[in-house]
Amino acid sequence: MRAVVKPGPGPGLEMREVPAPRPGRGEVLLQVKAASICGTDLHIRNWDPWAAARISPPLVVGHEMCGLVVGHGEGVTGPPLGTLVSVESHVVCGTCVLCRTGKGHLCPQTKILGVHRDGVFAELVAVPEVNCWPDPPGMALSIASLQENFGNAVHTAATPAVAGRKVLVTGCGPVGVMAIAAARALGARSVLASDISDYRLEMARAMGAEAVFNPSRQDLEAEVMAATDGDGVDVLLEMSGVPSAIEQGFRLLHPGGEAALLGLFSRPVTFDFDNCIVFKGATVYGIVGRRLWATWYQMRAMLRSQAVDLSPVVTHRLALEDFDAAFDLMASGACGKVVMFPDPADADGPLTRPTR
Amino acid sequence: MRAVVKPGPGPGLEMREVPAPRPGRGEVLLQVKAASICGTDLHIRNWDPWAAARISPPLVVGHEMCGLVVGHGEGVTGPPLGTLVSVESHVVCGTCVLCRTGKGHLCPQTKILGVHRDGVFAELVAVPEVNCWPDPPGMALSIASLQENFGNAVHTAATPAVAGRKVLVTGCGPVGVMAIAAARALGARSVLASDISDYRLEMARAMGAEAVFNPSRQDLEAEVMAATDGDGVDVLLEMSGVPSAIEQGFRLLHPGGEAALLGLFSRPVTFDFDNCIVFKGATVYGIVGRRLWATWYQMRAMLRSQAVDLSPVVTHRLALEDFDAAFDLMASGACGKVVMFPDPADADGPLTRPTR
Amino acid sequence: MRAVVKPGPGPGLEMREVPAPRPGRGEVLLQVKAASICGTDLHIRNWDPWAAARISPPLVVGHEMCGLVVGHGEGVTGPPLGTLVSVESHVVCGTCVLCRTGKGHLCPQTKILGVHRDGVFAELVAVPEVNCWPDPPGMALSIASLQENFGNAVHTAATPAVAGRKVLVTGCGPVGVMAIAAARALGARSVLASDISDYRLEMARAMGAEAVFNPSRQDLEAEVMAATDGDGVDVLLEMSGVPSAIEQGFRLLHPGGEAALLGLFSRPVTFDFDNCIVFKGATVYGIVGRRLWATWYQMRAMLRSQAVDLSPVVTHRLALEDFDAAFDLMASGACGKVVMFPDPADADGPLTRPTR
Amino acid sequence: MRAVVKPGPGPGLEMREVPAPRPGRGEVLLQVKAASICGTDLHIRNWDPWAAARISPPLVVGHEMCGLVVGHGEGVTGPPLGTLVSVESHVVCGTCVLCRTGKGHLCPQTKILGVHRDGVFAELVAVPEVNCWPDPPGMALSIASLQENFGNAVHTAATPAVAGRKVLVTGCGPVGVMAIAAARALGARSVLASDISDYRLEMARAMGAEAVFNPSRQDLEAEVMAATDGDGVDVLLEMSGVPSAIEQGFRLLHPGGEAALLGLFSRPVTFDFDNCIVFKGATVYGIVGRRLWATWYQMRAMLRSQAVDLSPVVTHRLALEDFDAAFDLMASGACGKVVMFPDPADADGPLTRPTR
Repeated sequence: MRAVVKPGPGPGLEMREVPAPRPGRGEVLLQVKAASICGTDLHIRNWDPWAAARISPPLVVGHEMCGLVVGHGEGVTGPPLGTLVSVESHVVCGTCVLCRTGKGHLCPQTKILGVHRDGVFAELVAVPEVNCWPDPPGMALSIASLQENFGNAVHTAATPAVAGRKVLVTGCGPVGVMAIAAARALGARSVLASDISDYRLEMARAMGAEAVFNPSRQDLEAEVMAATDGDGVDVLLEMSGVPSAIEQGFRLLHPGGEAALLGLFSRPVTFDFDNCIVFKGATVYGIVGRRLWATWYQMRAMLRSQAVDLSPVVTHRLALEDFDAAFDLMASGACGKVVMFPDPADADGPLTRPTR
Repeated sequence: MRAVVKPGPGPGLEMREVPAPRPGRGEVLLQVKAASICGTDLHIRNWDPWAAARISPPLVVGHEMCGLVVGHGEGVTGPPLGTLVSVESHVVCGTCVLCRTGKGHLCPQTKILGVHRDGVFAELVAVPEVNCWPDPPGMALSIASLQENFGNAVHTAATPAVAGRKVLVTGCGPVGVMAIAAARALGARSVLASDISDYRLEMARAMGAEAVFNPSRQDLEAEVMAATDGDGVDVLLEMSGVPSAIEQGFRLLHPGGEAALLGLFSRPVTFDFDNCIVFKGATVYGIVGRRLWATWYQMRAMLRSQAVDLSPVVTHRLALEDFDAAFDLMASGACGKVVMFPDPADADGPLTRPTR
Repeated sequence: MRAVVKPGPGPGLEMREVPAPRPGRGEVLLQVKAASICGTDLHIRNWDPWAAARISPPLVVGHEMCGLVVGHGEGVTGPPLGTLVSVESHVVCGTCVLCRTGKGHLCPQTKILGVHRDGVFAELVAVPEVNCWPDPPGMALSIASLQENFGNAVHTAATPAVAGRKVLVTGCGPVGVMAIAAARALGARSVLASDISDYRLEMARAMGAEAVFNPSRQDLEAEVMAATDGDGVDVLLEMSGVPSAIEQGFRLLHPGGEAALLGLFSRPVTFDFDNCIVFKGATVYGIVGRRLWATWYQMRAMLRSQAVDLSPVVTHRLALEDFDAAFDLMASGACGKVVMFPDPADADGPLTRPTR
Repeated sequence: MRAVVKPGPGPGLEMREVPAPRPGRGEVLLQVKAASICGTDLHIRNWDPWAAARISPPLVVGHEMCGLVVGHGEGVTGPPLGTLVSVESHVVCGTCVLCRTGKGHLCPQTKILGVHRDGVFAELVAVPEVNCWPDPPGMALSIASLQENFGNAVHTAATPAVAGRKVLVTGCGPVGVMAIAAARALGARSVLASDISDYRLEMARAMGAEAVFNPSRQDLEAEVMAATDGDGVDVLLEMSGVPSAIEQGFRLLHPGGEAALLGLFSRPVTFDFDNCIVFKGATVYGIVGRRLWATWYQMRAMLRSQAVDLSPVVTHRLALEDFDAAFDLMASGACGKVVMFPDPADADGPLTRPTR
């Protein structure tokens, strides 16, 4: 089969013919119908220190996908052949104290598709049966693919109490803008958002932000204070991984407020604990992955009740063959989710043709 | 009356004759029976930047106390004359959104006795009726005085879920060791503790720590890992305000763990959010003051059921006249709580006589 | 002034001239602009056992209202003269353990306007300053008046976790239909509703119910099971006080579900605890009043963000003079909220003229 | 092998030679070392309606046990041969929404050992690997056996917030008295207990009840009110399944209190919802089984920290051969836990010899 592979240590990816995977015991074989690009995939292409420390090439990359069940390994009782499923990319041990007490997303044995084992930017992939999430009939493939990433957004927005609260989202990449939609679906009184890209602020508005701010040319603190009658916000969703954003976000947090941190900073940050957390009586949550499986059920509820419409997030569709153009687009920031199709005929919207 | 006063900007305190206070509407006049010294009082004596930014001399200092009700201002319906009461030192507005939704300890209008208004190192003090907490008959005066500080410890220990959990307390000053006792009363499976003073580690053991470590000569991380079968701890109570302690504490925190931060760092800290909070899925609570009034009821339950015995914390008793010696003792660190008595005959244990 | 009075033990109410109230210390005098009728008021008119056990005539009745501040008692610092305020009808002690730990709505000393002290179906009423909730400029008087009752609905809907859940509301009187709207604003996946009045089921739909059922001619259990793919519901909001409704509601509750009970049954109910609660691992909440003041802030957020529109609930407006017709209308069930105006010129919609 | 069997519909049990079980895929074979009797087992012996509706004879009965791993089915990776394990008796599906969101104890597909599949009153039993809980070296066999039942107690006591609260336990059978110990370990301020058997009230005291009451000759409501300064209790743990107990328990519950219901009533109960739940703002929890696996970790913490000592609960040890005498003893009520040993030489205390 054809797959996008990290061939060896160093930057770059290439499309290669590799042997088709065989599903092991408890695994299903999936025919990939759509696969979307995540920031993590860019790190892997660039071979930054994070990637170099984790990846053992050669490796098929990618972890966001939906696909059809086309094979059952031994002992599989689950989704029948032909079912469209989305995939939870974290393969956990199921037996540690975290897995056994509702915190499987923090399992120290987690293996991530496209990071620790072969991923989904390919025609076929084998995943454990328990990692499959059957999709409802008629779900668009692009939406089905990005659910895994939407789960990060829902996990972040659902951890603090947002109902009736004023929320600030710092960082409006795809997961940030999906968090805006999730916060609104959860009853937030209002959602404010910041990013240094006007393109992304447009997307933030489309996903439900009441007001958006560009700190590269606006005084974020003054603007948010003005927009909240001087109260600041009750909840901070930090999705940017930018040190100035976390400091500003906490300064804007009302005493007794809550902050959920999803963004990664990649290095230590100088932080004023006294004024940002202690005196404020703030509560702070670190967010990683999706709660297994509470977050997936929350997503299902939001999508089936149409409380959230993810279609504005999907801005580009490309053939998997054009993965390099898709990655370039993702790296440019001038996009929402970029979804790739192993079979371009599956695209659920106009295809972007790369200019070569 | 005689009172310990900050006479003007700059270091030092002096005992002076000042006019007796008159209780205003809704206030009671208290005859101070015992008053204990807090770290905050040292900052005020030293006139450090924190104090210089907040204190408007002249001011009677001190905020931990118990005393007898000896006068009622207009409209007071509360504790009858002669009642022994402890005092909540935070005078809050009662009408803001925080006060009205169970977060009065975070009221932005808070006035603290001995910081924003005249305090308790005096023969008499006037405080709002609502800030009085009637003590049970027979409670030792030294214990009654330090309840306010015990409340910081209970607030810290009761915020994360400690029942059945392994807990690390970093910093074993008086509030730290009281947090050890509170965590045990709340069902902690075990409490480990660290401090650089062996004197304080002794006190930590006396208050219920299962194991204690001195990072000035032990490898805290290795020791705690060994003591927890390599698991680390489920809960961190950070009571030291030392940057290395918070970093080490978080590294020792099990994924999914909780941290309550009471210690103040007085300056920004360089902190690895990615590994300490985000990837760990940690929850962090900033702690200030006491929850009004849930914490006081929790304290009452712990003391009346004898789940906590605070008597080992009271290491020194002095006459209020000897306040300078009392402050020196507190500054030395070789003590637990230092309690002062305006009338030395009230001392509920042997008096320490200063060597002048 | 003119007021609607329960003149003595026995059925009936009459309009009388009574002395204008004078605001005591900490109280404000309000000029009533609008006042709405609650089920409790019907019990008092009818003089049923509940009323006979609580009411000491003569008494001005009524407890839902909004009005202008027209006088300040001694010591009042609060809403300036001329402010439009809604009123929390429960006057609580403020000093008991419940009042001091966020459960003031359960204060055993509660005095309710129009039940234990003179109420609001009058030209003027004196209430404690702390019971006033300033309304935003431009709020319709009828909406401002019924906020107190909306608070029952919000308290009920906000107590279980409704976000992403399927909710069944049994009983579609005014508070039931407002609970439907509140549940949707809080992110419920879907809300189903039942009542034996088709009039009220219409109102339920208008307030956001996805499907409505009339148990007087439909098999409620079969219908709800069909509408939920056989799962039943995750949350039950019992607003009817009808024994068959609570049994059916619990049978429809999914294992692990939550039920909030606001309806009053007025007599013991035969109930299958084993199957309805124990084996199901259900959680059940008794709901009374409004959380002081968390519920009011939640209401404010829902109304200001326009997540809830209460206008369809106000079906009738009458002059206070026509109180008997207004009560008859309320007793008929063929209405939503019935709002009365001491000055008919204040009506914010067409007046219903009684046919005498 | 020899096993205690329900041979057919109707009362009685008999010891029989039956084929040894073979562990299926994912199952382990256990050599039973100790097995304790639960109230459920009595129902099955008596063949009451509950049992008749669920049991398909012939069936090996019993579900509380510990034993050695002596065989591994295909695919088992878990506890090595020779490990002593206790057994979770609820075999759940692992894939339903309840199993996947931390509520596996409510899985509708639950199969219970000794009820829906062959049980543990036998020399050997096959159980899923995931149902095994490795015991620490040196744990007494009788304690290891009854952990499953202790889990009911811990689940009950840990569901409401008992720390610092006054708790009433109605019903002092084995699970009731273990709940007393669990509540104390969780920081309860005091635990009161009631039962009509003085034998069991003695046991309640031994397990930590501060005061005990016998409603067959004492006025429970008056006594509890006197013992709580007229406040009543904050938490009710209903372990009796007696209708008068639940009504009295709720009348004694303070407003805002919480009740956890484990006892089964076997028939509908006439209950005053208005006064017992609604007006009180009470919260009620139905309790079944053990939270998978949070409760087991809580148990481990209580036992390893020695916060709970279960040894007083084990009052009788018998040879499995003497099962009829053991059941008679259990039925008499004059006992705590009755533990049976397939090999009497394994008994960890004096054996009770039946008088035949």
